[in-house]
Amino acid sequence: MVKVTIIGSGNVAQHLISAFANSDSTELVQVFSRDISKVSHLVPADMVTDDFGTLADADLYIISVTDDAISEVSQKLTFTGKLVAHTSGSLSPDVLDAKNRRAVLYPLQTFTKNKPVNFREIPVCLEAESSSDYQTLEAVGRSISDAVFNIDSKQRKALHIAAVFANNFTNHMYKIANDICRENNMPFDILKPLIAETANKVRLLSPTDAQTGPAKRNDKKTIEAHLDYLTDEKRKSIYKLLTQSIIDDGKKL
Amino acid sequence: MVKVTIIGSGNVAQHLISAFANSDSTELVQVFSRDISKVSHLVPADMVTDDFGTLADADLYIISVTDDAISEVSQKLTFTGKLVAHTSGSLSPDVLDAKNRRAVLYPLQTFTKNKPVNFREIPVCLEAESSSDYQTLEAVGRSISDAVFNIDSKQRKALHIAAVFANNFTNHMYKIANDICRENNMPFDILKPLIAETANKVRLLSPTDAQTGPAKRNDKKTIEAHLDYLTDEKRKSIYKLLTQSIIDDGKKL
Repeated sequence: MVKVTIIGSGNVAQHLISAFANSDSTELVQVFSRDISKVSHLVPADMVTDDFGTLADADLYIISVTDDAISEVSQKLTFTGKLVAHTSGSLSPDVLDAKNRRAVLYPLQTFTKNKPVNFREIPVCLEAESSSDYQTLEAVGRSISDAVFNIDSKQRKALHIAAVFANNFTNHMYKIANDICRENNMPFDILKPLIAETANKVRLLSPTDAQTGPAKRNDKKTIEAHLDYLTDEKRKSIYKLLTQSIIDDGKKL
Repeated sequence: MVKVTIIGSGNVAQHLISAFANSDSTELVQVFSRDISKVSHLVPADMVTDDFGTLADADLYIISVTDDAISEVSQKLTFTGKLVAHTSGSLSPDVLDAKNRRAVLYPLQTFTKNKPVNFREIPVCLEAESSSDYQTLEAVGRSISDAVFNIDSKQRKALHIAAVFANNFTNHMYKIANDICRENNMPFDILKPLIAETANKVRLLSPTDAQTGPAKRNDKKTIEAHLDYLTDEKRKSIYKLLTQSIIDDGKKL
């Protein structure tokens, strides 16, 4: 059985720890956390260390820390020649110290602390420097997910940006919608079925086919009325720019 | 039992027809459609008319046509003093001919032709000119939905704009994300769990609490790297504007 060690105790690390703890085909041998209490609800205390010098032998060490800390953490590892992966969407394997074999295991999801997710549905994007390392990574990926992808650094960088649009910016659209509701004494609940169905639609239709609304119809009267209504300059700019972008897309079809 | 007639055969009209046809507490008495074949899969042929002069007696006539046609259709009704509602998110009841009692029944959802929805979960926003008319509307609304809201024209206008952000602009974010994936030889499927979870998160968390990503963290290094990557000027402008908006929101907290 492949032996895995997780280094880190943040949001992504915790979800990975719990995914590996529930996997029958990978053995989680150890967790490194400077603050042992952060992972004590996930693994027995004797599986946790806060000392790089006591890291046990494993087939794969996964460094799941903030982007800025990855390089430094990889330098602190006292061993060499082993397989070490980070979990960042933005960075290449090269940020890891070259004394070990470098790889990436990037789970593409928005993780919320204490909100369980079904890890088996989460796409896990893998990159390794050799095909034998890729095989190890793939076995590990498949032990926690049914959606394993071979994604190189160039693709992963693009994917991370796509995810910013699909998640961060989408959530910001919800935020503006929520603010407009609140300012008009309407509960955000009124929009929740619409939000759910909007996400649901693109499971079956392409986003181009799913697009509706005044911009899609180039309904200038409604667009003008909406712009008149939006007195907040930032919202008005966002409405204008996205409307124009949808109209331009329509012209390309 | 309250008797309802639907005038129209478009997307929203068809979903309403099927919701009323399945309701035990409202009687769908007739459907007006210029093209009878558009609704023949939903109701028996003898329930459909294309002649305003033959509209049967009902407690509520629902005009579900495009915004631009509502006023004209309401003028073509040959009776007076009856309760007539439109289904537009943008317009006040006043666009309806004043010879009848005016109202609005606005189902807030993105309807896809031939894709069934659970109408009982769809918020139905009601407005009437008198409390007795509101009671009729409310009985009709509750016969098809568990989420009935009293929403006046000012609120409904705001709600429609909020829906543009929550649905139209959100879908456009998916579209850009899809394009970025395609340009880098990655399937859109890789983003679908993220899209589903992004929508799912705001069922429990406020959009402010659900916000993550480089803009939320004001992670200038990642933001700069993404802007460098985005060579398409429109995408770059959208990325910049939405990132700044998320950063500004963070400062207000």
